[in-house]
Amino acid sequence: MQLSNDVFIIGTGESKYGELWERSLREISVEAGLKAIESSGIRTKDLDAIYMGNSLSGMISGQENIGALMSDYAGIADEDVPTLRIEASTASGAAAVYEAYLSIKSGEYDLVMVGGVEKMTELYGNEMIDISSSILDREWEAFFGGTPAAMAALSARKYMKDFGVGKDVMAAISVNDHKNASMNPTAHFSNIITMEQAINSTPVAEPLNLMDCAPQSDGASSIILASEEFVKREKKEGVKIAGSGISQEYFALHSRDSLYSMKSTVSASRKALQKAKVGLNDISFAEIHDSFSIYGVMALEDIGFAERGKAKDLVFSDIGLKGRIPINPSGGLKAKGFPYGASGVGQFVEGYLQIMGKAGKRQVENAKYGLLHSVAGTGSTSIVHILGGE
Amino acid sequence: MQLSNDVFIIGTGESKYGELWERSLREISVEAGLKAIESSGIRTKDLDAIYMGNSLSGMISGQENIGALMSDYAGIADEDVPTLRIEASTASGAAAVYEAYLSIKSGEYDLVMVGGVEKMTELYGNEMIDISSSILDREWEAFFGGTPAAMAALSARKYMKDFGVGKDVMAAISVNDHKNASMNPTAHFSNIITMEQAINSTPVAEPLNLMDCAPQSDGASSIILASEEFVKREKKEGVKIAGSGISQEYFALHSRDSLYSMKSTVSASRKALQKAKVGLNDISFAEIHDSFSIYGVMALEDIGFAERGKAKDLVFSDIGLKGRIPINPSGGLKAKGFPYGASGVGQFVEGYLQIMGKAGKRQVENAKYGLLHSVAGTGSTSIVHILGGE
Repeated sequence: MQLSNDVFIIGTGESKYGELWERSLREISVEAGLKAIESSGIRTKDLDAIYMGNSLSGMISGQENIGALMSDYAGIADEDVPTLRIEASTASGAAAVYEAYLSIKSGEYDLVMVGGVEKMTELYGNEMIDISSSILDREWEAFFGGTPAAMAALSARKYMKDFGVGKDVMAAISVNDHKNASMNPTAHFSNIITMEQAINSTPVAEPLNLMDCAPQSDGASSIILASEEFVKREKKEGVKIAGSGISQEYFALHSRDSLYSMKSTVSASRKALQKAKVGLNDISFAEIHDSFSIYGVMALEDIGFAERGKAKDLVFSDIGLKGRIPINPSGGLKAKGFPYGASGVGQFVEGYLQIMGKAGKRQVENAKYGLLHSVAGTGSTSIVHILGGE
Repeated sequence: MQLSNDVFIIGTGESKYGELWERSLREISVEAGLKAIESSGIRTKDLDAIYMGNSLSGMISGQENIGALMSDYAGIADEDVPTLRIEASTASGAAAVYEAYLSIKSGEYDLVMVGGVEKMTELYGNEMIDISSSILDREWEAFFGGTPAAMAALSARKYMKDFGVGKDVMAAISVNDHKNASMNPTAHFSNIITMEQAINSTPVAEPLNLMDCAPQSDGASSIILASEEFVKREKKEGVKIAGSGISQEYFALHSRDSLYSMKSTVSASRKALQKAKVGLNDISFAEIHDSFSIYGVMALEDIGFAERGKAKDLVFSDIGLKGRIPINPSGGLKAKGFPYGASGVGQFVEGYLQIMGKAGKRQVENAKYGLLHSVAGTGSTSIVHILGGE
């Protein structure tokens, strides 16, 4: 059965991304939510539901059911707004948007808030490495010492060997991210970095250096979604979610066909483009999941912006704000920051601002369609959304 | 916009509930899923999505993103079935069913599997008490020593005082549960208990004794949901999800208007009945969330089977399989068992079996409509579904 009940983003809000030592999970989450409500000009009592994307609050803060907790702390517990948490590790935010999108498509809801939040800096060192490894296969990867960085390093080494390229191809992703983040007041990092600085930064898991690894940030992002009917009735401006795709593949890296291609990304982006009825040439900008720079390189090839092994022909000159395909105008996971459950929602905030022409100094000219790409762990789940269009 | 795309349960499967020391999270989860697939006669490649309900796998087993993990271990990673995890603490299973239901209502999917799983016995003692307290407000309840049992005890004491009743009103819920569970091969406990045994069992948190507290069980439950179109095309038999309601209220107990009423249950059951267009008198049986016996008593009153303070007029004679309103034919949380993320899905398994007339010795006569009631923590979220009807 094919229904046509389009879904629009009508407002957004974010906390600062960064090391927010003095602020709590609930505080930043509520800040982002209230800003989104203000930005969209709605009343909280009109909300039909809230979806929260979060990955690690149980393990980090000993707190489950944060959907309900946040509704309480936002002061709307009395308004009986159903609130659930959606989790797909580092793609939790995008997954929450996806569920909210379906809930409106279902005809059950007209106005839904999505929040993404993560407070990563409560813990650090070995304890935090262990917790962040919960996004891997605990029994077959983490147990034997695999960490997210170590798994990404395997992909990077194999990619460099098979295609005869150097660290510079990966570093270019991070350099571009930092440049864009310097124009994004929300971003964790505001400093510009050079290729030399990136390539020569502290080793983390060879061949990946510190500047190849997204930071563990605190942060919260929120968006308000509305049905076509609501948008027309209330005369709201918004950005359409034109298509979405979600795909799975093997959980552990050792089961995959390739170390440097995520089949889930290939499939999810194809699905999303098909649903949106647009081609890659129509895309004005993309937010890609570069938790490690090698994943950014892989995403460019998996989505199809570059052929396999040919990201090197793209990353040095064509991914800037004025390039052929602007990548991560927000600053991406590397420089805007990487609060696990928030990042996926943060991509929607950037997509909304770009298409509404409200992105300030980092505005992409004539931004019409945006592609948003979020990944769980090392690629077990990929979620792609296309924003834009009439 | 009102759509009419009904959703049906066409098959179910469960692992044994209990202390499954020798079996892993992934093993029992896959067992339940494969049984559900077999029971419904579908092919895995026809599945459009999988929703997993789980509360504590991150904190207990250090494993996140178990949706993707389970799809891999079920051997269907190659079939690219989108899989997400839904969490609302002890209501995670019911929440996962709700999301699956919406996804079919949306017209995006025709055939969806829901799995609920929890492996509680990996940890025990103080560590497990701390983890299970993650379903409370960590900063305002658990931090000061509040545990799930302690919070329920506050409700029990106040209820007993205000209505001048004894422990027997609560014990009657557990006695009924054990009797029904003795006829359910899936159940954690198969022993019948007497009122005397229940009332005189080991104190846990006065006035609650061991027999007032649901056990920490391992277990997995799974159901297959299909659209009306799929059911007709494939000539499947099934049980309709006639209505659903999900409601919120304040997270922490100290914010509530009453210690012995969950506003979220009052509201969720009203919503569900309204959507199903049936009254309480049409309900043939109910599965209620009695993680503690006092919550069972409160549920009877919040849903409306008894007036406030009058559960005592119901529980001693009218909740058996042949009673006015059979409660927890499955054995309930107390005796079928309480694997957090699985229980909500398990209620649907029981509802399906009862309405299909396949519940064996514990069959409720002429079971036509069932009410399923699931609660997050101490009542921050309640989810009610009505099964049955044409």
